[in-house]
Amino acid sequence: MRLNIAMIGTGFIARAHANAFHQAGRFFSLPFELATKVVCGRDPSRLEAFRRQWGWEEGLTDWEAAISRPDIQIVDIAVPNRLHAPIAIRAARAGKIVFCEKPLALTAAEGKAMAEAARGRPTLVWFNYRRSPAVRFAKQLIEEGRLGRIFHFRSYYFNQSGADPTKASTWRYRRSEAGSGAISDLLSHSFDMALYLNSNILELSALAHTFVSGREVDDAVMLMARFANGSLGSFEASRFGIGRRNGMGFEIYGERGSLAFDQEDMNRLRFFDRSDGASLQAARELLVTGPDHPYSANFWKPGHIIGYEHTFIATVADFLLALAEDKPFHPDFDDALRTQELIEAIESSAASGRWQSA
Amino acid sequence: MRLNIAMIGTGFIARAHANAFHQAGRFFSLPFELATKVVCGRDPSRLEAFRRQWGWEEGLTDWEAAISRPDIQIVDIAVPNRLHAPIAIRAARAGKIVFCEKPLALTAAEGKAMAEAARGRPTLVWFNYRRSPAVRFAKQLIEEGRLGRIFHFRSYYFNQSGADPTKASTWRYRRSEAGSGAISDLLSHSFDMALYLNSNILELSALAHTFVSGREVDDAVMLMARFANGSLGSFEASRFGIGRRNGMGFEIYGERGSLAFDQEDMNRLRFFDRSDGASLQAARELLVTGPDHPYSANFWKPGHIIGYEHTFIATVADFLLALAEDKPFHPDFDDALRTQELIEAIESSAASGRWQSA
Amino acid sequence: MRLNIAMIGTGFIARAHANAFHQAGRFFSLPFELATKVVCGRDPSRLEAFRRQWGWEEGLTDWEAAISRPDIQIVDIAVPNRLHAPIAIRAARAGKIVFCEKPLALTAAEGKAMAEAARGRPTLVWFNYRRSPAVRFAKQLIEEGRLGRIFHFRSYYFNQSGADPTKASTWRYRRSEAGSGAISDLLSHSFDMALYLNSNILELSALAHTFVSGREVDDAVMLMARFANGSLGSFEASRFGIGRRNGMGFEIYGERGSLAFDQEDMNRLRFFDRSDGASLQAARELLVTGPDHPYSANFWKPGHIIGYEHTFIATVADFLLALAEDKPFHPDFDDALRTQELIEAIESSAASGRWQSA
Amino acid sequence: MRLNIAMIGTGFIARAHANAFHQAGRFFSLPFELATKVVCGRDPSRLEAFRRQWGWEEGLTDWEAAISRPDIQIVDIAVPNRLHAPIAIRAARAGKIVFCEKPLALTAAEGKAMAEAARGRPTLVWFNYRRSPAVRFAKQLIEEGRLGRIFHFRSYYFNQSGADPTKASTWRYRRSEAGSGAISDLLSHSFDMALYLNSNILELSALAHTFVSGREVDDAVMLMARFANGSLGSFEASRFGIGRRNGMGFEIYGERGSLAFDQEDMNRLRFFDRSDGASLQAARELLVTGPDHPYSANFWKPGHIIGYEHTFIATVADFLLALAEDKPFHPDFDDALRTQELIEAIESSAASGRWQSA
Repeated sequence: MRLNIAMIGTGFIARAHANAFHQAGRFFSLPFELATKVVCGRDPSRLEAFRRQWGWEEGLTDWEAAISRPDIQIVDIAVPNRLHAPIAIRAARAGKIVFCEKPLALTAAEGKAMAEAARGRPTLVWFNYRRSPAVRFAKQLIEEGRLGRIFHFRSYYFNQSGADPTKASTWRYRRSEAGSGAISDLLSHSFDMALYLNSNILELSALAHTFVSGREVDDAVMLMARFANGSLGSFEASRFGIGRRNGMGFEIYGERGSLAFDQEDMNRLRFFDRSDGASLQAARELLVTGPDHPYSANFWKPGHIIGYEHTFIATVADFLLALAEDKPFHPDFDDALRTQELIEAIESSAASGRWQSA
Repeated sequence: MRLNIAMIGTGFIARAHANAFHQAGRFFSLPFELATKVVCGRDPSRLEAFRRQWGWEEGLTDWEAAISRPDIQIVDIAVPNRLHAPIAIRAARAGKIVFCEKPLALTAAEGKAMAEAARGRPTLVWFNYRRSPAVRFAKQLIEEGRLGRIFHFRSYYFNQSGADPTKASTWRYRRSEAGSGAISDLLSHSFDMALYLNSNILELSALAHTFVSGREVDDAVMLMARFANGSLGSFEASRFGIGRRNGMGFEIYGERGSLAFDQEDMNRLRFFDRSDGASLQAARELLVTGPDHPYSANFWKPGHIIGYEHTFIATVADFLLALAEDKPFHPDFDDALRTQELIEAIESSAASGRWQSA
Repeated sequence: MRLNIAMIGTGFIARAHANAFHQAGRFFSLPFELATKVVCGRDPSRLEAFRRQWGWEEGLTDWEAAISRPDIQIVDIAVPNRLHAPIAIRAARAGKIVFCEKPLALTAAEGKAMAEAARGRPTLVWFNYRRSPAVRFAKQLIEEGRLGRIFHFRSYYFNQSGADPTKASTWRYRRSEAGSGAISDLLSHSFDMALYLNSNILELSALAHTFVSGREVDDAVMLMARFANGSLGSFEASRFGIGRRNGMGFEIYGERGSLAFDQEDMNRLRFFDRSDGASLQAARELLVTGPDHPYSANFWKPGHIIGYEHTFIATVADFLLALAEDKPFHPDFDDALRTQELIEAIESSAASGRWQSA
Repeated sequence: MRLNIAMIGTGFIARAHANAFHQAGRFFSLPFELATKVVCGRDPSRLEAFRRQWGWEEGLTDWEAAISRPDIQIVDIAVPNRLHAPIAIRAARAGKIVFCEKPLALTAAEGKAMAEAARGRPTLVWFNYRRSPAVRFAKQLIEEGRLGRIFHFRSYYFNQSGADPTKASTWRYRRSEAGSGAISDLLSHSFDMALYLNSNILELSALAHTFVSGREVDDAVMLMARFANGSLGSFEASRFGIGRRNGMGFEIYGERGSLAFDQEDMNRLRFFDRSDGASLQAARELLVTGPDHPYSANFWKPGHIIGYEHTFIATVADFLLALAEDKPFHPDFDDALRTQELIEAIESSAASGRWQSA
């Protein structure tokens, strides 16, 4: 069966989505054929260039037209945050499968409206890092009980994008278009990791800060959290992490072992196993390219590493495999709504200076 | 203009080639359109599965028919070594552009016949690691004189493929099909790196060894070399490098600095710059994902890493860009022939126990 | 001139102090001769064993007698926290130079009384990590302006000492003897680093947690802070950092560069210099063993690393060099009192769940 | 029982020896008391400065007088290579215990004369790296069979000492005083490691090279070797290893696992254990500071690292413990003679360009 996609957006992240649509069927045996049918953008010449480069059948400047077309089964949203809700809600109402770039929305209320509009329909939110093989393998180790009771979940996301003052004019620095700054852009990924790998967050105390006066959104955010499983959480994200480019990572400490991951070195997972003999306990630097690692049968051979784009490819593949079996896919709109609520709790706590239940 | 490809082979490396043919036009603005026209394989059902998975228009079991077709402009050879020469020579004589998996041939004589048959025609040999961005950047740093006079080129290639006795029955362990073992399979890459990054090899003294009795080919090889630029070379490759999966790397020491690279960590290049102040001299761990790194404008953003397959993609793109400008592409058959001659010098030296001019 | 030392304590840390007293004069040209005159301990046989092993002239079970002896110039306190104040105050009143193990005291009030009693007298608190050459070099780089304006000071201290339930009976787990748990034991070091390398802390919001029910002190602590220089601070310390043994470290992000340090790899400092060319910007892994690194002329040769004990040796040497020149030494009792006040602010904030000015 | 030492030499390595004599009794419970009785040097003012700094009772300019004194039990040789033989032979004939800095001698003949003169007397050669805890632990793992049959022993020793032309005037660059260059200075350590950790070397093929014209000794050396246990060896050492300061290390690949060590990171040993589950096989980065690691009970606590000097301290301690129990100590003069013979085999092979049995 063939699924036709209409993608809205032609920017950086739209490239990653488009690539994933083309590649998913190469690396995975998929139950559906994906067709890159329509791509939408406002600027006709840019749109046409994108369409040709990334192999879309048609280019349309009117996204509303695109998503109402009966030959479209999947609508993929790859535009700035403020457009997520209007497009997603309309697409859901038109009966489409909806894929949406992260974060879900500008606000939790918006996110809730999106989730409700899409209730009963398959959805996907592009928290792609869940599909880093190392993250997937971390999940597996945790589920096997290899860490035991969790004590600490530490998380960080640093890049240096904010340190360039010329960037302040993009949509990512406007509250009305982005919602927030490092929180939406970076920390939302960390929350998705935490919810996926650890457990729900019960309460948090946060600080948000803007280093450059005049900017509408936060440049950096920090928070302390208590998880439902009794572990403690620390989160920090900043666009002023000079020297880091895409420095997203975490450390998890449990009674039986610990894990560490950094996206800039995404083919590796550090695993400390306390069940080893005393003199042999040490962090193993696992190269998660197989054998027996998640997705390793799909991509190359052991020792032959993969990159950023493969997290998107695996996301698409997992979605389609779940769809074929009528199983739930995560992260969906409801999962992303939870992240959105946590974002709102950050903002509330940062404003009050107090702990906020979340 | 459109170039139709006929690829011979459906194994692991054929996947990497096929992927590159599809992806080159996505990441690069190419002067040609590539069409994955015909794929050839002996086993019809396997062939058909490959054809569909990797998007080829036709599947043919008769490679001779494929390469004589007038609608084919490029013949790509992705089969065991013993078939390289017959296919390449016939394809060249049919006036095709010829791409050939490394190593070029079983023997230098065969390689020479291939190079002569293809004289005047564009050729490409898949020594893909030249197009690791880190390797490309190493080349740039060397050409800028940042290492100065070179003292040492140290090279290694370790995997553990030979340590699995069940693998001995594949073609890679038969002299008639592979030519040699670790030498052809692994060390040939190291020689290509050395010729690319350093200089020609004048003489060498080598040792080849087979750990498993009954195997026809070498499991491991070591050699010492003298380069034309006055530097010393050490090379080692083994299929018994327990713990390494695709451990190809090098270190280069020069009077003004040094470099280190390992393919399992291919997004990084270690660079020591002696022109830094004394207390600030240290290896920099360059994440070669931009800005201003080779191919970084083609792939993702700084900090967003790439993988094994991208070295193949860049190889195709560079070839087509050179073709459009009527410029030479390297490594071509002549370059690979030089590597083949060096392989023969290894075998000669290993047999005599003496230094061998190369 | 000769300075006679009376050291109170025979435990692990007393070994480190004693070693430093012997070694300071070997590695440094000191203006004083140090004599390991009297060591005090309660258990006579253990005391005698320690005395002989670590080369003290006399062993006394009565520390009050020891510190009142007129032939003693320096009193060194290497006993559990609750004894710091009584010994230090008495020693100061007896006109001695006082060295005290960290943290200074059980409470800020106690610390204040100690600082007042010692006013005008040379004092030293063993926050030894200030004298890791890498930390010293970090200080130098910061003072040279190589980081520019500081954005983030991130700090952690993880070990797994708390995860062993049999340890709960030592003095470190009793409030009356230790004051607090991970806060006093671990985080106090991080605060000393922060005050030394960055700036004063204006306010903080903290969480303290005990994982093992029945324990009187915190097993883990986290906090967010605002520094006087406008930077943000994050601190985390835990005795449940499974896999870490002495995992104290920090990252500092500034507008012109960043630094990272970990005490388990104490001979290295990671330095990212944004003034390098764009394609050459990367963390340098500085091996701070010379040339031109702090203390490198005192210890061995470049590339010949030093260890934990050398931070104590350099502490003693720096103190004596300052003493001879009548210059202030840091960290002294006043510096450590500031850390003690911050510890109290942690406890207050952790209890209230609010930001606390400090 | 007290053993009085006479040490000949006041240079860098004499500092390391002197320090070890003082410290061995602190960290180890020794069956003997060591006394730093006499130090010898030619320059009286330098001698006196050293004597005071490093705590020797007497300073003598006449080493012959020193070693003939009846109150001396141990003679320690810490002078340039050409003086090793005359001093050692005379000391041995005077009935002393003899400690000698590496390499043993200028030639194998000299070394043989030394070994014969000292036959039946306890001797020690300062191949100190054997006592790096990580090296000791590597030995233990190998003896436990955790690597199984060994395939490869790879070794390197790089520093950049030769790249400074002003250094060419020291004794290390004169054949008559040093014997050879990188071979004696650096590679001798690697051979000692190989003989200790792997097995005897049966034959080798070597290359020696001098980059700076006019220098009497080799700047760099490379060789291939066959070990008695069937494994292959590669060795490389250079004074032109720009960027490395004391870069001595090795990799050992065996059928059941592999090891890697680098002296600049001497508190760590990388261990890959093939008996782990397939998805959990990876190099463990063992921090060999305890528990249950060699010497960890003697030095500090887990996670509290040690340095260069501790390899000398452990050497002295092991010698004295063996002496008390009348057990053999290694490496002794006979062990070092074997290394000397291998050095001679290198020179012979490098001259002939052929394999040389060793």
